[in-house]
Amino acid sequence: MDDNPDIENELPERAYEMDANLVDNVLSFIETQDKNGLVTLFDQYHAADIADLFEQIDPTSRSALIQLWGKEIDGEVFAEMDEGLSGELIEEMSDELVSQVLKDLETDDVVDLVEDLEKSEQNRVIEVLDTTDQIAVLNSLKYPEGTAGRLMARELVMAPTHWSVGQAIDNLRKSKTLPQQFYDIIVIDPMSKPIGKIALSTLLRAQRSTQLVELIDEEFRTIPVLQSQEDVAYAFNQYNMVSAPVVDEENRLVGVITMDDAMEVLGDEADEDIKLLAGVGDESLTDTILVTVRQRFPWLGLNLITSIFASIVIAQFSSTIEAIVALAVLMPIVASMGGNAGTQTLTVAVRALATKDLTSANALRVIRREALVGLLNGLIFAIIIGFIGYYWYGFPMLGIVLAVAMILNLLMAGLAGILVPLVLDKFNLDPALGSSALVTTFTDVIGFFAFLGLAAAILL
Amino acid sequence: MDDNPDIENELPERAYEMDANLVDNVLSFIETQDKNGLVTLFDQYHAADIADLFEQIDPTSRSALIQLWGKEIDGEVFAEMDEGLSGELIEEMSDELVSQVLKDLETDDVVDLVEDLEKSEQNRVIEVLDTTDQIAVLNSLKYPEGTAGRLMARELVMAPTHWSVGQAIDNLRKSKTLPQQFYDIIVIDPMSKPIGKIALSTLLRAQRSTQLVELIDEEFRTIPVLQSQEDVAYAFNQYNMVSAPVVDEENRLVGVITMDDAMEVLGDEADEDIKLLAGVGDESLTDTILVTVRQRFPWLGLNLITSIFASIVIAQFSSTIEAIVALAVLMPIVASMGGNAGTQTLTVAVRALATKDLTSANALRVIRREALVGLLNGLIFAIIIGFIGYYWYGFPMLGIVLAVAMILNLLMAGLAGILVPLVLDKFNLDPALGSSALVTTFTDVIGFFAFLGLAAAILL
Repeated sequence: MDDNPDIENELPERAYEMDANLVDNVLSFIETQDKNGLVTLFDQYHAADIADLFEQIDPTSRSALIQLWGKEIDGEVFAEMDEGLSGELIEEMSDELVSQVLKDLETDDVVDLVEDLEKSEQNRVIEVLDTTDQIAVLNSLKYPEGTAGRLMARELVMAPTHWSVGQAIDNLRKSKTLPQQFYDIIVIDPMSKPIGKIALSTLLRAQRSTQLVELIDEEFRTIPVLQSQEDVAYAFNQYNMVSAPVVDEENRLVGVITMDDAMEVLGDEADEDIKLLAGVGDESLTDTILVTVRQRFPWLGLNLITSIFASIVIAQFSSTIEAIVALAVLMPIVASMGGNAGTQTLTVAVRALATKDLTSANALRVIRREALVGLLNGLIFAIIIGFIGYYWYGFPMLGIVLAVAMILNLLMAGLAGILVPLVLDKFNLDPALGSSALVTTFTDVIGFFAFLGLAAAILL
Repeated sequence: MDDNPDIENELPERAYEMDANLVDNVLSFIETQDKNGLVTLFDQYHAADIADLFEQIDPTSRSALIQLWGKEIDGEVFAEMDEGLSGELIEEMSDELVSQVLKDLETDDVVDLVEDLEKSEQNRVIEVLDTTDQIAVLNSLKYPEGTAGRLMARELVMAPTHWSVGQAIDNLRKSKTLPQQFYDIIVIDPMSKPIGKIALSTLLRAQRSTQLVELIDEEFRTIPVLQSQEDVAYAFNQYNMVSAPVVDEENRLVGVITMDDAMEVLGDEADEDIKLLAGVGDESLTDTILVTVRQRFPWLGLNLITSIFASIVIAQFSSTIEAIVALAVLMPIVASMGGNAGTQTLTVAVRALATKDLTSANALRVIRREALVGLLNGLIFAIIIGFIGYYWYGFPMLGIVLAVAMILNLLMAGLAGILVPLVLDKFNLDPALGSSALVTTFTDVIGFFAFLGLAAAILL
């Protein structure tokens, strides 16, 4: 019973949030150059939390922290860090410190760490590795970025088809080169081709005399080494896989991908979609101000160009606006509603494409659906905005013009929101990339043109 | 060598995409009422792919498919389906078919399936279960939706502290109530409190005589049964966990959560953020048109209200616009740039809050950073738009008014983009919910007010 208060303390309202105390303590250890205090404190935290700490403090403190930590440095922390940041820190570290970092890491983590470095810096880091690891890392780097070849680990647990459960377990006990954690044994034929896998939980429950082939999991999928990491993540998520063997063009086993890697990719991909839709690149809070300005500039520039398009449309109706200023007051409503409706459809479409729920098999049905949704919402809001326009300026025809423009724009918004990502996807472009700007330009242009054009035709 | 063509066939340009042939085949089996053909075809597919197939065909075909599949129905398919859809299908199924579906599922999947059903329908489904499962499901449903209690499985693999490796393995071989897959053994004390866990890969490598306590993983985390599923997913991702014991308020073991459940939540949460930012609820392509219209309506309604705010601001400057129509032409540019810049900042902030990279420890630094980024981009685009305004209308002061309004609006956009989600989060509201509408209203109002106000003061 008296455990209760303790448990309450372990359950803060915000679980897992970096505590400000940790940050303060680390900063004061840096100030007093208290290395022992720092090492003792860090011992109580997971590498991922220390990586987060690095992301939370300013660049000067980061360098000072690396210096103070020195040879006690934990390489795992760099594997957990945002890639841009780990690269920056590696660049300012001595060869000695770099080798300290690398010796804690498995080769797939080293690949992750060096792949974004500049060529000369990459070479410096790789030279610090011992020869076996050098070869493994250089081999992985031969595969294109973003493929299974870069994700996979080369530490494998495999067994030939003719072994029994007992032989497999005895060999596991003897082996000295196993990965830290593994979940399956891959069964291979004499040509090194994987023919199935056995979950450790199955292996443990079987009798020692059972033959491995009898236990093979029938739901067995291999990952081609050149498959994109999005597809790898999709497969893990879709088929609830914990690990999967990676094979080369000749179907020979070359590596293994585990769920933690796939989970990271899955998170990254969703993150990328969100950010691309909002017109931000692969940016993080640790980027400097100038880097951020430079990253956001092209998207704002694109938006400037597209909004100038909309202005050119408005400019064609200058004399109409001069005659009825109410049009200038009301026109942003039509454009804004269209932009919003278009973004709704676009977002649903981009996510459905990412999860492969939207395919050529149902595209036509979805297009029709979005057009109808746009039309129906257009009708509803046409009635509302029609009355508002009428009462605001006491001018029934203005209400009717607003209403008709609203219907047209929401219908077109629905169509643009679904067609733009489908067309981008058809041409193998990322449907999230720039589609937001395209759709809102379209709805702005249609919105202003429909409203002002109708006004010019009917009201003047 | 002659394997090569095969492998090429296994590597279509679009891996894992539902093939249209499958859909066509199933539809033709329905037409000819060819049950054997259907069952043989489905045997070759993973339950998750059959679930996707259900999502791709229209509602009438879905019902026909269920009827044809009949008693051969595979319950796993329903666990993989979009929740809204599985609920709809269950509602139209006979008790006999429902029990056929349920007998293939573990209790956490049953909970997932029934939690969104209406009360009466929920009772009907639960009554079909056998008594042990009924109790387990009802117990899970006692925990609030979206907590660890709902996610966890009750099938546990545990061992007391005093066992050796050999005893543990022998007991695993004897046990008949183990979950299908598991990755760890949870070691518990006599009070049922988990004191550590052992990965199966560690257990397999150890000698039979080794005591379990010697193998316990020191990085051991328990999940409180009332913890939110977002936090559970965060912990799995942050600490690379494969499974975690769930404990009640007295710290006693009550269940276990595995990575596949956490991965699903992680994907759902990112999806939710994207959709909330775009003003769409939890909608999917299988929703009917009317449901979709109803779901999108409130967001469009909110947008209507906020855009009317912007119009009211414009209306204050009617006489200014009447005097200089160029203002009506150019004003959407300022507003649109502000909206875009605000959305960029907002999106980065929402994601950083979700990944706990943005906390009270670094909030001030991030706010300052966003203000500076806004200011710098404001200066750059002020120069560009200033010249455009000047050349377009040959009127230098118009360019200056545009430039100053641009600086002000991008600065304020940066501030709104970071402050709105921070404030929502402070009040424990979802920072993605409605923040998009708040930020763009803010930038529209500031944009129109700054531009038209400056114009009225300077140009008239």
